[in-house]
Amino acid sequence: MNFADKLILQIIRKGNHVCVGLDPQIEYMPRFLKDRFHKKYGDTKEAVAEMFFEFNKNIINSVCDLVPAVKLNIAFYEKYAWQGIKCFEDTITYAHFKKLIVIEDAKRNDTENTSLAYAEGALGKVKLIKKKVKGYNADSIVINPYMGADTVKPFLKICQAYDKGIFILVKTSNQSSGQLQDLVVSGRTIYEMIGEKASEWGRNLIGKKGYSSVGMVVGATYPDQAILLRKNNPRTIFLVPGYGTQGADSKNIKYYFNRDGLGAIISSSRAIDYAYLDNKKINEKKYAEASRLATIKMIGDIASCINRVEK
Amino acid sequence: MNFADKLILQIIRKGNHVCVGLDPQIEYMPRFLKDRFHKKYGDTKEAVAEMFFEFNKNIINSVCDLVPAVKLNIAFYEKYAWQGIKCFEDTITYAHFKKLIVIEDAKRNDTENTSLAYAEGALGKVKLIKKKVKGYNADSIVINPYMGADTVKPFLKICQAYDKGIFILVKTSNQSSGQLQDLVVSGRTIYEMIGEKASEWGRNLIGKKGYSSVGMVVGATYPDQAILLRKNNPRTIFLVPGYGTQGADSKNIKYYFNRDGLGAIISSSRAIDYAYLDNKKINEKKYAEASRLATIKMIGDIASCINRVEK
Repeated sequence: MNFADKLILQIIRKGNHVCVGLDPQIEYMPRFLKDRFHKKYGDTKEAVAEMFFEFNKNIINSVCDLVPAVKLNIAFYEKYAWQGIKCFEDTITYAHFKKLIVIEDAKRNDTENTSLAYAEGALGKVKLIKKKVKGYNADSIVINPYMGADTVKPFLKICQAYDKGIFILVKTSNQSSGQLQDLVVSGRTIYEMIGEKASEWGRNLIGKKGYSSVGMVVGATYPDQAILLRKNNPRTIFLVPGYGTQGADSKNIKYYFNRDGLGAIISSSRAIDYAYLDNKKINEKKYAEASRLATIKMIGDIASCINRVEK
Repeated sequence: MNFADKLILQIIRKGNHVCVGLDPQIEYMPRFLKDRFHKKYGDTKEAVAEMFFEFNKNIINSVCDLVPAVKLNIAFYEKYAWQGIKCFEDTITYAHFKKLIVIEDAKRNDTENTSLAYAEGALGKVKLIKKKVKGYNADSIVINPYMGADTVKPFLKICQAYDKGIFILVKTSNQSSGQLQDLVVSGRTIYEMIGEKASEWGRNLIGKKGYSSVGMVVGATYPDQAILLRKNNPRTIFLVPGYGTQGADSKNIKYYFNRDGLGAIISSSRAIDYAYLDNKKINEKKYAEASRLATIKMIGDIASCINRVEK
């Protein structure tokens, strides 16, 4: 089964389109966890990485029956060197054990040979001295399109070979995303053109449900752009960041979906991971429960704005 | 001393502008190394990572008296999970021990908070449970500009705080780089506009030698574009990949420099790292010597095409 079909199957099973971002940050970790891991490992990168893994496991445990997917932004793991990357790998393994689809938010892009190294590492197999073994084994990875088609092709090849997916940055959620993405060339914006390219790249990766394993990133903060992109790219799954903390209005989320009730996965990281910080009455030891409640609330908010998924 | 000054000091000391790329790939490793590390660690990621570190150390030993800088493309390390990242860290430490400037070729880009995580990890300090410690401690990192100014600013902040540098992807060396980068908006190409932005971002990071710690990537394969970018961005150091294996003509390399003989650092990875493969008469055990000879040849080729550096 290709990536798009796998993702849609989980969306239908869980009955929603929510993706929980697992972006552990030291500043927001509960005090009791810091104390516990400091006591065990000292003030080290290992302590932070082990704490992050504990935190991630508990968030996963508390949301895995609710949502179809998790998204790990590798920046927050890479920051803590090899210890952080080990936590990244372990979190992917644990999320898979809990039957979640894993999106690696890495925004990678490089020349052909180097993109292949990224693709093999994230999604495919890597060559050892004699045999080949699995890499990080994420189900999909986010890609930056600045360098052009030949830097995306190695990812497409690996998607074909291993039933994996990619999401191309098209219209990102941040404030200055328009600086380059909204520029107009011969009457069309850059994000429209990159969107068209992404659809083109995904043409050979369309699954039985009619969606491609080449998705695109369309920020929740730009509904007007989403309307246009939705119209132009009917077979593309949108990965939608910026919901929650980045100030997007949930009423607009319907524009990211097709009439079949599919076509988007809405991601939230900070508002879910650190939900316990939003209510001072919550005991920090119940952080995972707070994350579960925030997830349920988000699922409800989105459900009230869009068509039901046709099972 | 800021990054630009540090780099220029090393360029003047070594009398050339060559940067050796350390991009270890299993396919090109000498057979005797594969055998040795397979014997010691089995067919594991650890074996590959330890072999890469041994390989890198020997390349560094053989070129450290010749060149000012090395460039590590993290893709080739990240591919081998935490074991690869450990090798990446150890290689940076070893390169610094041998007084080389280290460029981390990562092409990272993300929303503001996430870019900060990348910047702190690569160039600055990272927060543990109580104290802060150094991250990878590279001297500079390559950045992708697709997401706009607010995603670059955290890197500028870290450059200011720790005397580090960045290189912005402007005109990349790969074949399809023009697909987006050469598009024309109101009479100007995207790469010109991004180049202008990079100059703007670097205005507060200009060192005593007149160059900014915000550099840009300009591929050796596009001399016409380099002429224009050189003219428009006199205070910018160009990081020039694609020399050697990507078919660039060394005669054109002069266009990447200013009249003061400065303004560019020319990078070569495969043609140096795997020089031993280009001559079947060379015993593979002498791979590092072959790399040294290839480096000397490259230094000579470039010197014959440009003005001498004014000491």
